[in-house]
Amino acid sequence: MDNAESENFISESSVDDGVYVKSSTKVPKTLSITHILLALGSIGLCVAWVVKNYSGFTLDNGTYHFLLMTLFIVFTSVGATSFRIFTFVSRPVAKLIHAGCLTASFIIASVSLWTIFKFHNDKDIPNMYTLHSWLGLLFVIFFGLQLMGGMFSFLFPLVSPTVRTKILPVHRATGIVLFAGIAGIAMIGINEKLVFEVGKYKVKDAFGIIPNIFGLILFLFACVGTFILVRPEYKREENRSQGLEMQ
Amino acid sequence: MDNAESENFISESSVDDGVYVKSSTKVPKTLSITHILLALGSIGLCVAWVVKNYSGFTLDNGTYHFLLMTLFIVFTSVGATSFRIFTFVSRPVAKLIHAGCLTASFIIASVSLWTIFKFHNDKDIPNMYTLHSWLGLLFVIFFGLQLMGGMFSFLFPLVSPTVRTKILPVHRATGIVLFAGIAGIAMIGINEKLVFEVGKYKVKDAFGIIPNIFGLILFLFACVGTFILVRPEYKREENRSQGLEMQ
Repeated sequence: MDNAESENFISESSVDDGVYVKSSTKVPKTLSITHILLALGSIGLCVAWVVKNYSGFTLDNGTYHFLLMTLFIVFTSVGATSFRIFTFVSRPVAKLIHAGCLTASFIIASVSLWTIFKFHNDKDIPNMYTLHSWLGLLFVIFFGLQLMGGMFSFLFPLVSPTVRTKILPVHRATGIVLFAGIAGIAMIGINEKLVFEVGKYKVKDAFGIIPNIFGLILFLFACVGTFILVRPEYKREENRSQGLEMQ
Repeated sequence: MDNAESENFISESSVDDGVYVKSSTKVPKTLSITHILLALGSIGLCVAWVVKNYSGFTLDNGTYHFLLMTLFIVFTSVGATSFRIFTFVSRPVAKLIHAGCLTASFIIASVSLWTIFKFHNDKDIPNMYTLHSWLGLLFVIFFGLQLMGGMFSFLFPLVSPTVRTKILPVHRATGIVLFAGIAGIAMIGINEKLVFEVGKYKVKDAFGIIPNIFGLILFLFACVGTFILVRPEYKREENRSQGLEMQ
């Protein structure tokens, strides 16, 4: 893979008078595997946190929100990177994975929001006073709009190919910003939950260390996902050579 | 600008057999102006927060950390986007702005870390128990390494042009991930500081609303910066046509 990377590398120095041959580089296997391992690690550590600090998941302690939001981020990352990671499947299949994962993400996020509002309402905790809640709700709404925009532009296209061609780079960039954003917002949430019990948190024992490691791993997962997404070289080769990019 | 955008747009559909003419699109003026206004708004709201909740900046209340970290993010965003925003200056000048802003960023972040450690030590508050502190310290260290790597690869190059060509896309992608990361970590910090006084925070008055709006504006600023950075179309045109990209 490293060999392929160096051979196919798109360097700006190969550019001559604005015309050049562009070839794509596959995402190195080590990066894909790291991405998957960090996802599994995040889910495991989230469960460990809830079991350790809350004796498990119930609707009464609001902890489903933590697991569902972790799954939201994982599904979003897999969905967002599907065109780049799943190069062993055809482009239409990668596209179905993209749309499927991101639709699942949005449903998971919506249920997750419901569980935390229910928890607040049942316990008479005020809603929507933290920065986490403001940014979180905003980004889930933006996520829904982006999903709907993607659906009606690319999956069941209501717009002309010319418009789609213009929309695609914006859809891609907005998607990366949304993904990085929700990962950051999740970190706020983990930190916030722990600071609510700052007396226990600052003792630096398992109470705080497990969720800190969870946050660290989830953040690194998001960093790897973002890194894969922001390299234009990782685009699928047939996006260019077979003219299939708009189907 | 909109007109230029549509005329110069790089669409994947113009690709034929992997060979195509690539032309760059300038960052729309509205986006650059929004970026600047959000930066100024962030700084203003940070000051308003500290004046409202802490009666101003002193080393005793740890509030310099908030302003310095805001400046860290602002300088990083300006530095990171310099090649794309400052198209009215020559590439070497844009490069000096890039290196200058990011060096300033790192110094500001280091001083900012010093102020918060000093605050903790003076008040006997434990250091390094929150997720914010773990991620924050990690990312400032990564930022320093990235800066050093950039300096010795591109500004005072110790490596061959071939190696530089390979490093550049990694430097670019890593930079975007670091920038998005520090913006997320700042949000954790704002939220954390408010949750420390959760009794006042949940009342939903100026105590919490001003910093929430500050966080929102700073996050939107980072989103705009990231959006500009993740669009390959926004690369400087002479990066390709004049072969100056490595100087």
